[in-house]
Amino acid sequence: MAMDVISVIRTKRDRGELTDEQIDWVIDAYTRGEVADEQMSALAMAILLNGMNRREIARWTAAMIASGERMDFSSLSRPTADKHSTGGVGDKITLPLAPLVAACGAAVPQLSGRGLGHTGGTLDKLESIPGWRALLSNEEMLHVLDTTGAVICAAGDGLAPADKKLYALRDVTGTVEAIPLIASSIMSKKIAEGTGSLVLDVKVGSGAFMKTIEDARELASTMVGLGTDHGVKTVALLTDMSTPLGRTAGNALEVRESVEVLAGGGPADVVELTIALAREMLDAAGLKDADPAKALADGSAMDVWRRMIAAQGGDPDAELPVAREQHVVTAPSTGVLTRLDAYDVGVAAWRLGAGRARKEDPVQAGAGVEMHAKPGDRVTEGQPLLTLHTDTPDRFAYALQSLEGSFDIGSDADFTATPVVLERIV
Amino acid sequence: MAMDVISVIRTKRDRGELTDEQIDWVIDAYTRGEVADEQMSALAMAILLNGMNRREIARWTAAMIASGERMDFSSLSRPTADKHSTGGVGDKITLPLAPLVAACGAAVPQLSGRGLGHTGGTLDKLESIPGWRALLSNEEMLHVLDTTGAVICAAGDGLAPADKKLYALRDVTGTVEAIPLIASSIMSKKIAEGTGSLVLDVKVGSGAFMKTIEDARELASTMVGLGTDHGVKTVALLTDMSTPLGRTAGNALEVRESVEVLAGGGPADVVELTIALAREMLDAAGLKDADPAKALADGSAMDVWRRMIAAQGGDPDAELPVAREQHVVTAPSTGVLTRLDAYDVGVAAWRLGAGRARKEDPVQAGAGVEMHAKPGDRVTEGQPLLTLHTDTPDRFAYALQSLEGSFDIGSDADFTATPVVLERIV
Repeated sequence: MAMDVISVIRTKRDRGELTDEQIDWVIDAYTRGEVADEQMSALAMAILLNGMNRREIARWTAAMIASGERMDFSSLSRPTADKHSTGGVGDKITLPLAPLVAACGAAVPQLSGRGLGHTGGTLDKLESIPGWRALLSNEEMLHVLDTTGAVICAAGDGLAPADKKLYALRDVTGTVEAIPLIASSIMSKKIAEGTGSLVLDVKVGSGAFMKTIEDARELASTMVGLGTDHGVKTVALLTDMSTPLGRTAGNALEVRESVEVLAGGGPADVVELTIALAREMLDAAGLKDADPAKALADGSAMDVWRRMIAAQGGDPDAELPVAREQHVVTAPSTGVLTRLDAYDVGVAAWRLGAGRARKEDPVQAGAGVEMHAKPGDRVTEGQPLLTLHTDTPDRFAYALQSLEGSFDIGSDADFTATPVVLERIV
Repeated sequence: MAMDVISVIRTKRDRGELTDEQIDWVIDAYTRGEVADEQMSALAMAILLNGMNRREIARWTAAMIASGERMDFSSLSRPTADKHSTGGVGDKITLPLAPLVAACGAAVPQLSGRGLGHTGGTLDKLESIPGWRALLSNEEMLHVLDTTGAVICAAGDGLAPADKKLYALRDVTGTVEAIPLIASSIMSKKIAEGTGSLVLDVKVGSGAFMKTIEDARELASTMVGLGTDHGVKTVALLTDMSTPLGRTAGNALEVRESVEVLAGGGPADVVELTIALAREMLDAAGLKDADPAKALADGSAMDVWRRMIAAQGGDPDAELPVAREQHVVTAPSTGVLTRLDAYDVGVAAWRLGAGRARKEDPVQAGAGVEMHAKPGDRVTEGQPLLTLHTDTPDRFAYALQSLEGSFDIGSDADFTATPVVLERIV
């Protein structure tokens, strides 16, 4: 063979740079099964520990795009705008955002994923709506997008199959947390999908994959560079994930909160981030005069939501599932809630049944955590702080374990507000 | 489950220390197939890049020993002495050494391997003797050892199966060159085998896995520490592998040279190293009065050789196979041979058919390289320098490629002799 995988692994293991030919070959050979999983995981670990430079990351991304089909939205009459979040707790933003941006004139194709670990998945959330289907053919997807302005669905198998295979491998080999691999994974799918512009929501904090602002900044710059190099207008916002977004973490719970936002209400942080991201998406799509706040207030975003849900078989008027059992956690003292940890709440929601331990597990539509106070709010001893929801009450004890030490109650002097949007990277 | 493999991988990935429980669990779970190859290879790469401390290596070794059976030589009337070489080019020392040490009163169980890459394997060499069998049952092995004093055979499947599986994995994932993994691999087999004393021949130089004296020293100290901790009297010699040992590299070629040594002749470096290692093995076995030089001179070592070969079905008087084709490389100028590179000669012998590219490939008994001069020898322009042997002459061109630049001819002033034994580590 022209290349051998051991020499590729050794190059990166010994802190060398991979050549373009090595990268093209290894991604192609892995997709075809000529390079084995155990060889790719050794290479992934070497990349995680020794890094890749900008040229290597760009070529790795291009090779993953070339492993599959590319989509084409050029037949649409509207400019396309896409958003990707690196994942957080209570991050339901895609749900109000996609119809909102569509109501302002853009076409919004949102190829989304499922939750794994402590972060929820957009498709899992929408599947709590009776009848709604995540799996569309390319033709169905284009039809929903063309007729309603927005579509949220599963990515097809043909898009960046190398990434699909590599992502599943990284998930079980401790090699998820490598910035070059995260950036190329996200961007290969987004570029192959064919969007004209892309806004990245890079989460920072305990509930995010990036725990520090430095790591988040590096990931964001890497992805913005990759998008720009491939002709996709790309911008990134670094946003806070030290505490959950909004007041709910869980599938149906988050759909309900999203509908509140579309109805002109909802938690302030969710509204603020939805509008900030919409503003970026509309700017990137060349729709600088659009007014997302108005589209939330006048019901036009809600109209798109209802048509989009209905076009994928869902009933926007259906009652959403409610978990069979509830358990209330009360405030142990009176004061100001100074901290409510995103990761701990995410793990609790996951343990209650909102998430899955393995890809093939089902999720509970009604399970999750409802938060009755947000950091900065005054609480009184004995008042409900959190309500835990599950269909399987034997999970309460396990979920409560993860909430031990998850919040602090103090005085006004102990509290510093964190902005929702921390930085903007172009 | 009690442990999860991703947390074990992450611990080492993030430069932490693995606990005893993590090590015991991961070796056991890998042996049972609960931890997958792609997970173990990611862990192996993390160990290669981030290292293990002495406690971790000791526990890793103990866990690999515990994965299989242990042998017991306590029924033998003689003290046992074993030798292990880390592998080199032209390293046929086991062949004369085992019968020599047996002739001096020790029992010498040599569980040996096959060649892979540019280094030859002891079993491949002996299999060029018509009728000789490498595969013995434990009972047969003990019988040959008891009746002749020495046995050279393949290690059974029951000995350190975790190492067997891990070694095959490392071989295809670029994770061979990790000192903690090399040391634990060698020592787990030697300790499980149950020898009372062990002499390690740690090769240094272009033809060895350890290219520098520092790396060789670290590997040697690690292995001596492991042996000592397990009650095996262990000593290591660091020996030169910048040039091939003796005047042959290849299977039947090396058997022929070994028989010359047993007959009291043979190349000076092979004789010197054989006697040095024999002296160490006899000292370690408590046989301080034995005289290995005498046992070579008086034919008693040759007697053991003949009985040992015959006991495993081989005919010590049979003609050894000769390759069908030869190609002679002549000296391009007159002067002193100042350098003859071990790695280049090893690769040439391998390409001529003496070695294999994949485990399942056959080897050619007659193939290899014969050296008509050693570094320090005077050569005359046009005299034969190397004779290449193969059954498949289309391999000559490929073998000659690896010999380009493999030697230098200069003046006496350009040559510095390297001792055979560089250091002794206890």
